[in-house]
Amino acid sequence: MANRVFNFNPGPSTMPLEVLKIIRDELLDYRGTGMSIIESSHRSPEFDEINEAAISLVREIFDLNDKYHVVFLTGGASQQFFQIPMNFLAGGKTGAYADTGTWSTKAIKEANIVAKAHVAFDGKAFDYKHIPTQDELDIPTEAAYLHITTNNTIKGTQYHYVPETKGIPLIGDMSSDIASRRLDYSKFAMFYAGAQKNLGAAGTTLVVMRDDLLQKSNDALPSLLNYKTQVGKKSLYNTPPSFSVYVVKLMLEWIKRQGGLQGIEKINEKKKDFIYGVIDKNPDFFKGTVEKASRSWMNITLRLPSEELEKKFIAEAKAAGFVGLKGHRSVGGVRVSVYNALPLEGAEKLAQFMEDFKKKN
Amino acid sequence: MANRVFNFNPGPSTMPLEVLKIIRDELLDYRGTGMSIIESSHRSPEFDEINEAAISLVREIFDLNDKYHVVFLTGGASQQFFQIPMNFLAGGKTGAYADTGTWSTKAIKEANIVAKAHVAFDGKAFDYKHIPTQDELDIPTEAAYLHITTNNTIKGTQYHYVPETKGIPLIGDMSSDIASRRLDYSKFAMFYAGAQKNLGAAGTTLVVMRDDLLQKSNDALPSLLNYKTQVGKKSLYNTPPSFSVYVVKLMLEWIKRQGGLQGIEKINEKKKDFIYGVIDKNPDFFKGTVEKASRSWMNITLRLPSEELEKKFIAEAKAAGFVGLKGHRSVGGVRVSVYNALPLEGAEKLAQFMEDFKKKN
Repeated sequence: MANRVFNFNPGPSTMPLEVLKIIRDELLDYRGTGMSIIESSHRSPEFDEINEAAISLVREIFDLNDKYHVVFLTGGASQQFFQIPMNFLAGGKTGAYADTGTWSTKAIKEANIVAKAHVAFDGKAFDYKHIPTQDELDIPTEAAYLHITTNNTIKGTQYHYVPETKGIPLIGDMSSDIASRRLDYSKFAMFYAGAQKNLGAAGTTLVVMRDDLLQKSNDALPSLLNYKTQVGKKSLYNTPPSFSVYVVKLMLEWIKRQGGLQGIEKINEKKKDFIYGVIDKNPDFFKGTVEKASRSWMNITLRLPSEELEKKFIAEAKAAGFVGLKGHRSVGGVRVSVYNALPLEGAEKLAQFMEDFKKKN
Repeated sequence: MANRVFNFNPGPSTMPLEVLKIIRDELLDYRGTGMSIIESSHRSPEFDEINEAAISLVREIFDLNDKYHVVFLTGGASQQFFQIPMNFLAGGKTGAYADTGTWSTKAIKEANIVAKAHVAFDGKAFDYKHIPTQDELDIPTEAAYLHITTNNTIKGTQYHYVPETKGIPLIGDMSSDIASRRLDYSKFAMFYAGAQKNLGAAGTTLVVMRDDLLQKSNDALPSLLNYKTQVGKKSLYNTPPSFSVYVVKLMLEWIKRQGGLQGIEKINEKKKDFIYGVIDKNPDFFKGTVEKASRSWMNITLRLPSEELEKKFIAEAKAAGFVGLKGHRSVGGVRVSVYNALPLEGAEKLAQFMEDFKKKN
């Protein structure tokens, strides 16, 4: 793979080469079954083992007890945006949402289509550069839950603490920073994440839910949208996205080989330090777009002195083998996504490239 | 691949070896991009090309004009079971359903959760061995649509004509016989299919819809469930199951290389003739479970004289390299799934194996 690029895509995104090699090597014959895992029945012993292993690995890696259920659903985080209120806001209940932009804004919009959302924090007033502190969260005592988006892929912000909710179930959309760091995951009654950033291939959504929250879900829903159906059938109510679940399982095994979340966090810290280091050293050239305390470790957003320079930077970086650095079309600028599988070397070399680019421009 | 088995799994199911080899060969580096297609952004030119090509190939292979929209959704056919009534039965409308068992029974159940279903044909009275004739269909003139399941994977039945509906939109769940034969697909206002049988990897659902039906869809739904959102964004409202869509595109190209539906149908006809031939020659030993006029070309269901013999047959077949022949747990017996990608040789050899088994038992 002499020509493998450093892939900074915001999602779907880079994967560990060693995981891709496993997928390739067993693609035609999954472990002696004489068929591909893609061709294997979701009722086969082979797939059952994958599903069970993935569930166990989630409990182990996130340090969760057996009160937590683990399912692999479809439709991405966007499906959770309506599935959550459909399940927990029936009968006129209200869900509280911290609006930190983009995805949480969409979550609020979808909740208001099927039920009622209360805005517990309005990030718009801060131009979405700021993650709320505990004191800034307004959580009504009657709220069915507080929903937060732990990392904003587009704005480049991230929570660096777990909010205290005084018994109100906390739900976290962790699509873009799942498994990137240590955290007390047991403070969440539910968390979920599309797989395509830190967990592998697009097509499945990890949903983790504590049993006391599950018991509050709404039974008057279509079977597929009913969390109890999915938990009761271990995600096999109907044919699951089996290839994506298989890749999640390989990714969880890879995370374990890195030393679990502790090992992953250590590398991620170094990676973001490389990039933010260059930004902080050259604040007039590489302008971070969010306040320091709210900076994301996963998606580092910045502007250059002009749009021309941004275009030039992105083009020259691409030519040098650093792909996917364009900011989201809604905000422009540059975005450096340093997900778990982006090698340390990639962040280090990009930092050097940034320094060189600055000198030349 | 000396040890490749003949895979009769009912879905996920066998794929053409040449398609699997393409996936394997380009898994680490998709066409010189320096990354896997799994790692490629769904906004990249590479994925855009895949998505557009898949849409075009569907129109070409099914001979549809540009009034038909093509999207790749998630959640399997089971998601369509509630998404269809949510979109087309708002305001108290009724959907008509022909109940030919299992999946259509589930479709009716889900429709009744969110709206109102009318049973246009009750297959239960025929023990689900019979597909309704045109005259047996009771379609109320005020029905918003007639929904049929063109093939029943579990019972082993299949429609061999397209019902006339006098202007009422016809919707077909074709999950288990999509692209298996020539048919006037333009008689359907909508058809859909989970990909995991004839179109590749589990994880996406092909949904094809004529524009006049689309215009009747309900806008007061969560964005992801709104067909207009999905059509307007060409399935890219949120991250699609990109790997599964990529595999669908490769499968559609493979279908085209077989001579399109005409070529595919010719091989499928021979395959089912091999198996039904043995059944009809030995009706006291291999007992077909459905009436001849309703026989499926995709899933051939049969019973042997005893459950012991069935177990023995399935076990000996497996040892001989014929995998996945167990009937669905709800009906028992033997099921021979001969989807598009099952090689002609597989059906021929299994027929021989059946003859030999009969002689010995």
